[in-house]
Parts: sequence; C-alpha cells; structure tokens
Amino acid sequence: MFNPKMNYHDYLQIDKLLSAQKPESEARGHAAHDEMLFIVVHQVYELWFKLILTELDSILTIFRGERVDERLMDLIVARLQRVIEIQKHLVDQVRIIETMTPLDFLEFRDLLIPASGFQSHQFRMLETKLGLKRDQRMRYNQSEYDQLLKPEQRESMAELDTQSTLFECVDKWLERTPFLKMQGFDFWNLYKQTVQDVLTHDLKIIQSNPALGAADRERNEKILQMSLDAFYALFDENKYNQARAAGDWRLSYKSVHAALLIQLYRDQPALQLPFRLLTALMDMDEYFTTWRQRHALMAKRMLGSKVGTGGSSGFQYLKDAADKHKVFGDLFQLTTFFVPRSKLPVLPKEVERELGFHFSK
Amino acid sequence: MFNPKMNYHDYLQIDKLLSAQKPESEARGHAAHDEMLFIVVHQVYELWFKLILTELDSILTIFRGERVDERLMDLIVARLQRVIEIQKHLVDQVRIIETMTPLDFLEFRDLLIPASGFQSHQFRMLETKLGLKRDQRMRYNQSEYDQLLKPEQRESMAELDTQSTLFECVDKWLERTPFLKMQGFDFWNLYKQTVQDVLTHDLKIIQSNPALGAADRERNEKILQMSLDAFYALFDENKYNQARAAGDWRLSYKSVHAALLIQLYRDQPALQLPFRLLTALMDMDEYFTTWRQRHALMAKRMLGSKVGTGGSSGFQYLKDAADKHKVFGDLFQLTTFFVPRSKLPVLPKEVERELGFHFSK
Amino acid sequence: MFNPKMNYHDYLQIDKLLSAQKPESEARGHAAHDEMLFIVVHQVYELWFKLILTELDSILTIFRGERVDERLMDLIVARLQRVIEIQKHLVDQVRIIETMTPLDFLEFRDLLIPASGFQSHQFRMLETKLGLKRDQRMRYNQSEYDQLLKPEQRESMAELDTQSTLFECVDKWLERTPFLKMQGFDFWNLYKQTVQDVLTHDLKIIQSNPALGAADRERNEKILQMSLDAFYALFDENKYNQARAAGDWRLSYKSVHAALLIQLYRDQPALQLPFRLLTALMDMDEYFTTWRQRHALMAKRMLGSKVGTGGSSGFQYLKDAADKHKVFGDLFQLTTFFVPRSKLPVLPKEVERELGFHFSK
Amino acid sequence: MFNPKMNYHDYLQIDKLLSAQKPESEARGHAAHDEMLFIVVHQVYELWFKLILTELDSILTIFRGERVDERLMDLIVARLQRVIEIQKHLVDQVRIIETMTPLDFLEFRDLLIPASGFQSHQFRMLETKLGLKRDQRMRYNQSEYDQLLKPEQRESMAELDTQSTLFECVDKWLERTPFLKMQGFDFWNLYKQTVQDVLTHDLKIIQSNPALGAADRERNEKILQMSLDAFYALFDENKYNQARAAGDWRLSYKSVHAALLIQLYRDQPALQLPFRLLTALMDMDEYFTTWRQRHALMAKRMLGSKVGTGGSSGFQYLKDAADKHKVFGDLFQLTTFFVPRSKLPVLPKEVERELGFHFSK
Repeated sequence: MFNPKMNYHDYLQIDKLLSAQKPESEARGHAAHDEMLFIVVHQVYELWFKLILTELDSILTIFRGERVDERLMDLIVARLQRVIEIQKHLVDQVRIIETMTPLDFLEFRDLLIPASGFQSHQFRMLETKLGLKRDQRMRYNQSEYDQLLKPEQRESMAELDTQSTLFECVDKWLERTPFLKMQGFDFWNLYKQTVQDVLTHDLKIIQSNPALGAADRERNEKILQMSLDAFYALFDENKYNQARAAGDWRLSYKSVHAALLIQLYRDQPALQLPFRLLTALMDMDEYFTTWRQRHALMAKRMLGSKVGTGGSSGFQYLKDAADKHKVFGDLFQLTTFFVPRSKLPVLPKEVERELGFHFSK
Repeated sequence: MFNPKMNYHDYLQIDKLLSAQKPESEARGHAAHDEMLFIVVHQVYELWFKLILTELDSILTIFRGERVDERLMDLIVARLQRVIEIQKHLVDQVRIIETMTPLDFLEFRDLLIPASGFQSHQFRMLETKLGLKRDQRMRYNQSEYDQLLKPEQRESMAELDTQSTLFECVDKWLERTPFLKMQGFDFWNLYKQTVQDVLTHDLKIIQSNPALGAADRERNEKILQMSLDAFYALFDENKYNQARAAGDWRLSYKSVHAALLIQLYRDQPALQLPFRLLTALMDMDEYFTTWRQRHALMAKRMLGSKVGTGGSSGFQYLKDAADKHKVFGDLFQLTTFFVPRSKLPVLPKEVERELGFHFSK
Repeated sequence: MFNPKMNYHDYLQIDKLLSAQKPESEARGHAAHDEMLFIVVHQVYELWFKLILTELDSILTIFRGERVDERLMDLIVARLQRVIEIQKHLVDQVRIIETMTPLDFLEFRDLLIPASGFQSHQFRMLETKLGLKRDQRMRYNQSEYDQLLKPEQRESMAELDTQSTLFECVDKWLERTPFLKMQGFDFWNLYKQTVQDVLTHDLKIIQSNPALGAADRERNEKILQMSLDAFYALFDENKYNQARAAGDWRLSYKSVHAALLIQLYRDQPALQLPFRLLTALMDMDEYFTTWRQRHALMAKRMLGSKVGTGGSSGFQYLKDAADKHKVFGDLFQLTTFFVPRSKLPVLPKEVERELGFHFSK
Repeated sequence: MFNPKMNYHDYLQIDKLLSAQKPESEARGHAAHDEMLFIVVHQVYELWFKLILTELDSILTIFRGERVDERLMDLIVARLQRVIEIQKHLVDQVRIIETMTPLDFLEFRDLLIPASGFQSHQFRMLETKLGLKRDQRMRYNQSEYDQLLKPEQRESMAELDTQSTLFECVDKWLERTPFLKMQGFDFWNLYKQTVQDVLTHDLKIIQSNPALGAADRERNEKILQMSLDAFYALFDENKYNQARAAGDWRLSYKSVHAALLIQLYRDQPALQLPFRLLTALMDMDEYFTTWRQRHALMAKRMLGSKVGTGGSSGFQYLKDAADKHKVFGDLFQLTTFFVPRSKLPVLPKEVERELGFHFSK
C-alpha cells in the first residue's frame, strides 16, 4: 500500500548530492574557504536550469501538437509564470555571490582556468529552446559559441538546432488564431486609421513642445516618421517580409497581427489567457536580460579588467548578450503601435460572442 | 492640445509631499537622526495602503453589480495580483526598518507616546473591506479595536460595517456559479465517494505506518475522523449551517461547493480565471499574515518586553492577529477535501461544452 | 602551470548533480509533472544547508580556539552575514514552491509517505550547532526529534551533542570581554540607577495615560514590575542563576553583562564588530523563525488539515518550532533594559582609550 | 510628561499625505484607473529619495569635519548600508509598476506630456551629492541636464555644485590614512613586484591556453599589457595625474594607494570598518546602475519606440546613464590589481600593532 522504506534522505539522493562538491583548492592542498560558496552557487543555478528546462519541455510538447487545447492554456501560462518566479530568484541569488570579496575569489580563481561559466550546457540549451538561433548568438572569442562545450554537448546543441523552438511554436500558434478573419468586419483599416491619428498627434505634440530645441525636434520627428513607416509596413506583406529578412521582425506577418489583437482586446474571455501568455514571454525575456546585466556587474566587481578564467571578458560578453540575446523583442516593439483603449474600434457583437464562453450565449 | 505647464514636480505635489515629515524630536530641540526613517517608512506604508484601497474599491464596485461580466474577470484578478505584489513589497520593507537599532529607536520613542500603529485608519478600513467583521477582531487592551481612532474615523468604520465586503461579494458570486447544477449529472455523489475513499485510504496508511507509536496513531485517527465528519457536513445543509454558526465555516452552503468545483476543474476555460481569483484571495490572506508575523518579530526586537507606545504589547497583538484576522480561511480549509486529479469524476461532454468558449463549439 | 582539462562541467560534477532527480511517480509509471519541482526545491535547500554548515563550522573553529584574534572579527561577522543572505533567499524560495497548487501536489504526495522534511539531517545538525539542545527541542509525534533519522544519522546527532555550540562559544567569548572590569569605575551602579529611572518613568506614563482603562493599567503595571524584577536579578548572581535554571535566561551571568555593554557602547572602535556580531546572531534567529513560519503557512495551504506525509501535522510543528527553537532569545530579551544613549553613563577617558585603536593613542 | 494628544494620524500628517494624489485623468473627466498607481509609485520613490538624502547629508556632515572620529566609522557604514537596503527596495518596486500594462498606461499618458521623470529634483541632488559632476553628466536632448527643472531648482543645483561631494570627502579621507607611510618599510616596492608577477603569470596562461585562437590570444595580450601599464602608472605620480586628467581615474594619487591598502589588509582591526565603507560605496554605485537598467527595460516595455513624455527616449537615456553615471568606478577598477592574500607582503609587527586596538597592546 505504501513503501515504508521511503525516506527523505534516499528519495532526494542526498548522499549523491552532497558528495558532488570537490573544491580544487583543497585537492591542491591549500583550501580556500570561499570555493565552497562558488561551487554551491553554480550547482544551485544548474538545478534551477534543469527545472526550467523541464517546464519548458512540457510546454513545447503541448505546443508541438496539432492544436493547443484551450483547457491547457492556463497550465502553459502557469508553468511560464513558474519559470519567471525562478528567474527572479536567480537574479536575487547574485546577492549571495557578492558576499564573496574579490580578494577571496583570487584565492582559488587561478585553479579554475580555463573553466568558464560559458560552458554551461544547460543554459545554452535553454537559450536555444527559447528560440535563440545560432546565427543570432554573439561569437565567443571570435569562435562559435559552443566551441568550449564538450564534443557530445556540441552534438546535442546541433541536434537541438533542428527542433522547433518556443518562439517558433508561439509564432505558429498565433497564426492559427481563429478570430483573425473577423467575419467581413474591416478591422484592420479602422485600426490603421486610429494608429495613424495617434502617431500624428504625437508628432504635433513634439512640434509644439517649447521645451525642445530645434535639433531635438528634428530628431524626434525622424523617430516618429520611422515608427509610422514601420507601422505601415505591418499591413503590406511584401514590405513586412523585407523588414523581417533584414532582422527588424522575427514573427510572421500573420502572427504579428494576432499578437496585436490579443493585446488590444485582452478583455475578451478567449483572449485573457493568450494575453497572459504573451505577457509571460516578455517577462521571461526581461528577467534573462536582468540576470545577464546583474552578472556582468558582478563580474566587473570581482575581476576589474582582469581577463576571465575562460580567456575572455565575462563582463563585456554578458553585457552585450543582455541586449542581443532577446528572443521575444517583437512583443516589446509592438507596444509602439498601441492606442488607448477608448480609441480602439468596437468589436461587432458576433465577434464578441465568438470570443465569449458557451454558457453565456 | 497639451498642457505645457504640466511638470513632474507639480503633478506629483512634491512640495506638499516633502513638507509632511516633522520629526517630533527636532521640534523638542534634540533631533534624533532615525526619526526621519521612522516617519518615511510609515508614510510609505500609508501610500501603499491608499493604493491597495483604490484597487479593492474598484473590485468591490464590479462585484456589487447585478452580475460579474466575464470580460472583467481578468481585470479583477490582475488587480488582486497587483495588491499581492504590493504586499510582498510591504513585507520586504521590514528590512529597511530593521536598519534602525533598538538604541536609536529609544532616542525618540518616548516622544511618540501614546501614538500607535494601531491607529492606522486605512489599515482598519482595509481589513474591514476584505471582510473582517467587528466581532471577529481581537480586542485591543480589552476595548473595541477602534477606540484609539479619531471620532470621525470611528464613524467611518461604523459606516463601513454596513457595506458589503469582498468576502461577502465573493460568497454571492460563488453562489451564482451557473454550472453547479450539472444538468442531472450526479456529480456530488460521485465526488463524495471519491473523497471518502481517499480519506479512508489515509486512515489505513496511518494504521499501518510502523514509524508511528500507539499514541500518535490514535491522535491521527481522531484528526482523520474529524476530517471525514467535516466533509460529510458539506453535503448536509443543516449540519453545515450549524458548523457555520459555530464559526467553522464562513462561506455559504452553496458557495463552498462552487469553490470546490472551481479548484477541482480549474482547467475548464470558464473556470481558469475563477481559479486564479480564489488563488489570489488566498495569497492576499497569506501575505497579510506574513506581514503581521514579520512586524511582530520586529516589534519584539525593537522593544524586548517593553510596553508598546500605545500602552500595549505590539508583539503579542500582531502575533495573535496573524492567526485570527484571516478572512478567506475557508479556502485553505477546503484543501483537506481535494483528491488527485486522476481520481476526479469525469465531466460529461455537455458540461464541458458549456464551460468552453463559444468559438470552439 | 594550469590544468587545460579543467572545465565547468567536470569541476561542478554536473553529471552527478543532474542524475540525482528520480521522480517516484515516473518510477511507478504515471509521471506527475510537478514532482521535479518538489525534488529540485528540496535539493536546493540541502545545498544551501551544506553551505551554511560550512560557514558555521569555520566560525566554530575560530571560536573554539584559546581566544578570538581581533583580526578575525570581521571575517566571523562577514560569514554570519553570508548565512543571513542565504536565509533571506531560503524564505523567498517559498514563492517558487507555491507555484505548485495543492491539486498538483496530490498527484504524487501519497507515493512519498512516510518520507518527511523532518528527516533533513543537515537541518537538524544546523539547529544543534547553533545551540539548540536536545531537551529544548519540541517532541515529534511524542518521540525524540531524531527518531525518524537513519541510525548513523542519529549517532552523528548524539556525537554533535557533545561538541560546543555557537551559543556556548559566544557565551564564553562574551565572558572574556576584557573591559568588563572598568578599572574601578562603578559602571553598573550608574547603569542600574538609569534603567530604574527609565522603567519607573514608563510606569508613570502608563498610570497617567487616559487611553487605558483600569484593567489595562493594572496589566501593564504588572508587566513593568516583572521587567523591573528581571532587571534587578541581572545584578544578583544568585537570583540570576535561579532564573537561568528556570529557563528564563541561557547566557551566563557575566556574558549577559558583556552583551549589554557591547550594545550600549557599540560606537567604541573595539565594540563595533562585536556589536555587529550580536546583531547578526539575532538576524539569524529571526530569519530561521520567519522561514519556519512561511513553511507552516505553505504546508497549511498545500494540505489543509490533512495529516502530513510523515504522519504528523507539519503546519503545527513548524508553527510551534518558530517560537520555541530560538537560540539567541536572550539578546532580544535584553532590549527591555536599553536606555536612550543620552542617558547612558559616560565612559571614563581611560576606558575609552583602551577601546580605541593603538595608532590614535 | 508626555503629550496625550500625540497620535499616529496627526504625527504622520496623514491628511496632508493622502490629499496629494490628484489624477489628471479624473480632473479631465475620464478617470483612468491606473493613474493612482502611477502617482503613488512615484511619490513613494520621492519619499525614499528624501530619506536617502537625509542619510547622505548626515554622512557628509561627519566627513566635512577636520577628521573623522573612529567612533563614527560604524555609524557611517551603517547609514550607507541603510541606503543600500533602500536601493534594493527601489529596484524591487519596479515589479509593482510592471503590473500596469502598456495599454493601461496609454489611458492617461498623453495628459502628462511634457512632464518627465527627469524632472525629479531630489534624484538630481542625490547624484550630485554622491559626486556626479555637471560635465560628467549625459546631456539630455542636447541641453544641460537641468534644463527641465524649475528655475529655483536649477539654482539649488548650481549651489550644490559648489559643495564638497561624498566622492571628494572620501578622497580626502583616504589621503589622510595614517599608516600609508609604513615607517620605512618599503611596502610598495614589494607589492609592485607581486602584482607584476601575477599579471605576467596571467599572460603566460593566455599564451599557453589551447582553447584560444591566435586572434584571441593577441587581444588578451593587449588587454594585459594595458593592465600592466595602468598598474605602473599607479606608482608614477606624473603618469597617474596624466591618466587622471584623461578621465581614467578620479581618486587622487595618494587616495588610490590608501584604497588599495585598505582592501588588501582589511583584516587589520583599524581597516575593518574602512573596508566596509569602500564596499558600501561600490554596492551603492552598483544598485543605482541596476535601478537605471531596470527602469530602462520597463520604459521600453511600456512605450516600445514611442517618444517619452518629456520628448526624449527614456529607455536610451537610462541605459546610457547606467554606465556613465557611476561615481566610484575607480574602486571597481582597482580590483584589477588585487593579488591573492597568500602572495601579499607580510606587514611588519610595528605596523600591525599600530592597526590594532589599544587594549590588545
């Protein structure tokens, strides 16, 4: 009926777990106290990475199916929110690392050369599964990002490259959004007009703002004009695909529309969870950025301008990756084209009905 | 078109805001440095309380209407989640207070007597609006909890007592849950059988657990028997109402069933947001408890066994209120009757359809 | 010169680490998704416990020496502050556990019976090393607290009982405080007079506070009288030792005086770090209490009134332990006898000089 | 004896405080719910800024005196640590702002134009008091940073420019470090030799690291050579002052040595608190950077590429300021020249004695 031998110690494999910390300084005969901190902190990161990967895989499995059952939307969102909760924790964990002073780190740092945090296989898997493509990655010491991984790990990364990523799954899922057609209701023209009005209004504000000098005014006008151009391109499939090929967008033409709709009409019952999904994807991106930024600062503090143990500047790499390794940047970009709810086209009754629950008729 | 005079300083009324800190120690001619911390910390609390009250009022307005539009569910939940985010922040804020040492507090503490944190009108309003009733409140120094408030504040509290609280609104909203009837499907009998099986199974585990001595076994059997009795009472309206009158439950007979259903079948599209609502209510309760516990510890640390500035032991009051001032305790209690998803009765197709979106037919 | 084979993966024993998660539900053929979360969360706890134990052991090693070199004071305090930083993180980690809903926990909970978190050997070691004595511990299911541990773990706990704890080390270190004698300066009589004045002043405040009813006044007078009695006992070695035997105090007669002095005159250079040490000990106690309280709330939420997997109510145990398993409660208690800095006896020049740095003469 | 009229409500000026929130959207007749959040969040920031300024002013007052009494060191550090605790809280507060979605922000955003967060007078004061000079500041829309402030605020900023900053105070305090002379002990030559050995050792590692390609090797060799050059300049007053004039360093020639010594020999009793001071200054810098980075991300999310309400891109300004507005960057830079403790020159007995407490002889 139940296993009377079941116990905390064996179940959690505590012996194995606690036998995996082997300070190199101790092995070399002059133990450096803080190396245990260093090891534990990184092992804890790897455990959380494993959990994040588990969550991500379960989400990918759902998304890779024919269609996503609406009954699973809350589950998907809840698991992403769990990932975000873990990410916040990962950021805070830097506070623990920073209890180690640079001088204490130097006691064992040389012994670790040329090992490097860039060799975390799980973190690379994580980035790839989210949707970071090989050619979008920063080069590392002028080589492929995975040069420092073990051969079998490099193979696993190459294999991963062939699988669909969360980004691609979400892209496909957005394309399938059923209510995009709007049953003859000419939504997009109404919306275009609105955004155009709003951006033009912004332009007038800039032109009449006495606080701005001529140069500022000109600069801001340029930015606004670029926004308008980018916006028009959203409704011209050719132009959009050109912009996409140039790296300005990653989502497909159809998806970008669906993503806009979901955010603008998020109150409709059928869009409430999809909206939370998009929000969670942005949160996730933002917290990975924050994590890289915090680590960059910490690396700077620990080593100054010293070269990193892997023969590279950890500070600069992390700082640059914080910007460039974003996956769902399109969603942040779309905000440019939001308009106040009060100016949104009103959905026709039939569309609203379709987006409602069955029981409320 | 826009107001060129609009500026950060006037908009936020910074002058007013920053002229509201008047350390009493300074007024008495021997400035105590840490009194500014003390004042700012409490003013920040009050600003957050005002925001929480604003969110709560907006939710109450929606709930007090005839029915709650499904399109507003996500909004309600999002605002509760905002409250929770603020609450986490309130708990963390204790870390700032604790940078003041007891000795530094003593420099100005006597000057504040008999002022007391119990005089926070907004916090009392908050408790009442959530659903804490006058007769459920702990007495304060053997008097009514609001004896220390100003006369006009006592009046406002009396007025509040006559308005419907969040608890009552949620209770009513749960009662209206449409799918409770299940169209002839005898859900509750199936469920009763399941829970009975599970609890009986637990009983057998206890009886066969070699780690438990005779006394423990007996004690646990008693607890389980109580659980079973409480569970049976859930399906006997008379018994339930007796238990409710005795203070064991606060939700109505119908509501308690709806709350169970929502949590057990939360994957159904129409129940996803209601489930998040119930979860948010529990989070809110839990974080108020945590806030009180943290404050109790802090008070103990700051004053030892000294009598509080209001002539009462802040430590003991906060510690006791942490337990007794819970509002949604029923939701925590219901967990006792959860069973693994795999053992749940399968919902008939028609019921599932009703709980789905219109567009998915 | 350096080991070119050194790499992140082998150094951190990632393979070993990541092969230690074996969900029981999977082994039984019906994988429950959230069991991975459950395992990882507990393994992360154990890794942090190992780090805390490492820090604690290093501190104990210093303290167990003949005397504590002043050059090590900052190191001791820094390591305790690291422990506290980890503790804050442990408390926040509950937010991750709470992304698991009770229903998801039930999917695998039965499979873990009778395993229990009480079987964490490292946490028990931690409590013991801090200073929790066997007879101060709460009984667990009416048996010795370590009944659920493995035989070899019970032995290790028995062995630990024979070693000096952090509490005992601090007690001894306080006793050795050199400046306790004050070179003929009758410090303690001056101080006694001051505290007496302050507590009597408090008494008058209570007697003249119109906000208090007769019953409150009486109750508060009693509390104050008890404080005065307790205070007088601090200067009567016999009375103090009686109170100590009764469990009112744990520190020795001499130590309690040293602890008072350090806190009252913490600005003196030689007392700055000792003051931070005492503060850190209180922080540590407070965060263990907070951790237990948060876990108690979480257990309640997860199981309601269900019996814990170890056949006991985790909620009640954790809640009671939060209060009773404090180690440095004396330090919190001492605050009762603090007086404002302005009322403290002024230290004679020679004493001040002794407490200063050599170079400042 | 005590003021019976003293009460929480009047003491904290709650009426004033809670009457300072006037949503513009409400004034214009179409209330936007989230404007209250927006107002409260910013007001809370300003309250914390006031507290930080209070702490900073008290520290500046101490530092501006003839010399800093050693008995005040712990106080200074404690107040800086309080500032840091507040800063952590300010960073976390972004989580509350982010509960506002971009769409909800748009409901009232236009009404605030051209108000801007750059108009926070207190934050500008804070930066200046820390040590940010007018010519080190980023220009804002190609104008002086304070163009958007009110005339009287600009005057106050000009006045502030004439007062000594925390940076300058610390610089002067470091210069006075008494033990810099080392009584004939040729410390710096020993240290130079050590650093030279360590950096040369690093060079050899790079040259023999098989993981690095030719290009990487060359790049790293260049970085190391630059480090060595920078290091030699530390001991050549002319060269150092040239580098300082070029903006490579901000601390004076003498101070940079003192800062190094304090960090390398922080275990000496007289250096324990100075070390904590330097650490706190770095923490403070780091958390302001983190705060700006988090706000930059948030601004991006809220507005995409929309122009900020002040007619400028908040995202870009905050992102750039995060890097450029550092004040204590020298301290991070110095880490480059740290060597493991085991390789440090041993201090002569007489020097050690001077750095010890008087009582320990």
